[in-house]
Amino acid sequence: MAAAVDAPEEREAARRVALVRRQMQRRRADALFVTHAPNIRYLCGFSGSNGLLVVKARSVLFFTDPRYAEQASSEVRGARVGIVAAGTLAQGAHKARVLAGATAVGFDGDRVPVAHLNTWKALFRGVRFRDASGMIDALRAVKAPEELAGIRRAVDATDRVFSAVLGLIRAGVRERDLAAEITYRHRLEGADRDAFDPIVVSGPRSALIHGRPSDRRLRNGDALLLDFGCVVDGWCSDLTRTVFIGRAPRALREAHAAVLRAQRKAIAEARPGMTGRELDGIARESLTRDGYGDQFPHALGHGLGLEVHEQPRISWASSDVLAEGMVATVEPGVYIPGTGGVRIEDDVVFRASGVEVLNRAPRELLVL
Amino acid sequence: MAAAVDAPEEREAARRVALVRRQMQRRRADALFVTHAPNIRYLCGFSGSNGLLVVKARSVLFFTDPRYAEQASSEVRGARVGIVAAGTLAQGAHKARVLAGATAVGFDGDRVPVAHLNTWKALFRGVRFRDASGMIDALRAVKAPEELAGIRRAVDATDRVFSAVLGLIRAGVRERDLAAEITYRHRLEGADRDAFDPIVVSGPRSALIHGRPSDRRLRNGDALLLDFGCVVDGWCSDLTRTVFIGRAPRALREAHAAVLRAQRKAIAEARPGMTGRELDGIARESLTRDGYGDQFPHALGHGLGLEVHEQPRISWASSDVLAEGMVATVEPGVYIPGTGGVRIEDDVVFRASGVEVLNRAPRELLVL
Repeated sequence: MAAAVDAPEEREAARRVALVRRQMQRRRADALFVTHAPNIRYLCGFSGSNGLLVVKARSVLFFTDPRYAEQASSEVRGARVGIVAAGTLAQGAHKARVLAGATAVGFDGDRVPVAHLNTWKALFRGVRFRDASGMIDALRAVKAPEELAGIRRAVDATDRVFSAVLGLIRAGVRERDLAAEITYRHRLEGADRDAFDPIVVSGPRSALIHGRPSDRRLRNGDALLLDFGCVVDGWCSDLTRTVFIGRAPRALREAHAAVLRAQRKAIAEARPGMTGRELDGIARESLTRDGYGDQFPHALGHGLGLEVHEQPRISWASSDVLAEGMVATVEPGVYIPGTGGVRIEDDVVFRASGVEVLNRAPRELLVL
Repeated sequence: MAAAVDAPEEREAARRVALVRRQMQRRRADALFVTHAPNIRYLCGFSGSNGLLVVKARSVLFFTDPRYAEQASSEVRGARVGIVAAGTLAQGAHKARVLAGATAVGFDGDRVPVAHLNTWKALFRGVRFRDASGMIDALRAVKAPEELAGIRRAVDATDRVFSAVLGLIRAGVRERDLAAEITYRHRLEGADRDAFDPIVVSGPRSALIHGRPSDRRLRNGDALLLDFGCVVDGWCSDLTRTVFIGRAPRALREAHAAVLRAQRKAIAEARPGMTGRELDGIARESLTRDGYGDQFPHALGHGLGLEVHEQPRISWASSDVLAEGMVATVEPGVYIPGTGGVRIEDDVVFRASGVEVLNRAPRELLVL
């Protein structure tokens, strides 16, 4: 750990660690155990699956196992790396006397399993472990310019994939084949992977909010709901469009118009300072006025970043306050069991006086 | 929940729940909270991401949110389904008085976060929550014939993908392109998804044990390490082969011979009744005799089933006893930083007197 901090990644890691240290001071924690992989990546750049990051007032230490030795030495920024060859990472950290002088240690109670906390308590006698749930998540919700740039790369890749996949949609094609194409084309666009399994559901199956692609073949008159996203250098995208095969049956055409109206209204009226509940309510009231109040059974959206679901939540139950720099999805939907469903989703970033839509995929009714 | 149990899936769910109830009795738990998605799928067939399954002596109840209402009604076997429209699933379960009469409730301490347990304790006053970590994992380790058949389908799909991808390997191709092909072809073979991001690393990068595919193009004299697997109806496969482009440099050819020797010896000598440590030791000693003792820094293998890493562990630190019906990987490797790595991995099932290799992909040195 050289004192000089030069490369942009080093500066970015230092900026994030400084934010965390400010929160640690407020909570009077003299150390923080970070175990959630996206939080570890956020704070030191490591992208593997097994790690323990310990943030203290004057040092940052990262522990992983020998499988990741080379990866850690090339990826980790702003932290000293320890490779733990035998035993758990916590045991390795204990041997390295990582908590010497610390008395109050924060941890992520929303994610650390009960049994892990118990082994930590047995290992680090005399230390008080304090639940600091949500601390890093709240910091991650507000995106710095470099972070937004990462999300844009993922969103652009997904937009390009949507545009390419449109050319493959026709009666006779299986849902499964379209899902395979989405995944394949994401990779060729530079994605590490899909952000989640693509949802490709057609006909009556489009009413399955989280349905899995099946062997069903597209038919004339089907709605086809495509919900997909990718991960580029750790940053996620998430896009939903609902298109029609040959013709759009009246019930679904009307649902599409109502969903689009609700989405446009929410996007037009979104402002920093609103709560998630207020923004959700704008779309929900619009759908209710159009007669679909009972057919929108999920939240309007969710934050997006190093995870595809993160802070802020935008639902009827969310008191999260939306702020400049946050990135979130806006995705109202209407589902008619036995007939089909319509969902339209874009990713937006909160600006000083509204939101900017990141996606460029057209939202108008498409009949292919 | 009809009393009659007819369909094979219903019988299978009933068999698994009966195994769990026997363990609950031994641990004097009158209810069990199951939250880990693969465990939920194992016990009731639900494949979504958000659920709470409650097993009691005479009933099984499953809670999920409205996004999964249709999916739950079509997938869930042997459990009554409750849809929780508002609040957490635990709050919904509490409203349904799911623990009426129960005093000791088991939960998975290795996975349930500290904060969740605290909310459960506040909600279900007077109930004692007992850590029952590993209970369902141990049952899942031993595969019933239907379960092994599921794994075979995934293994067969991965073998076919390996055989197809061999035809694409040549100098000039990018690691990233091969990874995209693997994912795409898995899907076309009927997989739901990859079991993990394909590891496709070439040249010196093949020494990265968990490396990510890059834009690097294959060159003459490269080792190319491919580690990939898929999920078919929930069941996983996991295969590694290391092939060579144009020619196999001597150091890596010798490493390949040593790794293959170690793998063959471990497979030939594997027996039920051995511990994971003993089986790991067979391969490790073979590599040590060949002079690679310090260059095999990971475990020999791991169980495979509804998760790609599950019980039993086969490592120098594992006291897990290997038993008939268990399925695991056998994957020794040798890594030479700056030069390259070799790993060879097959999936095996433990039989009465040895193991059967499930994969058919050739293990001999391939120069393409």
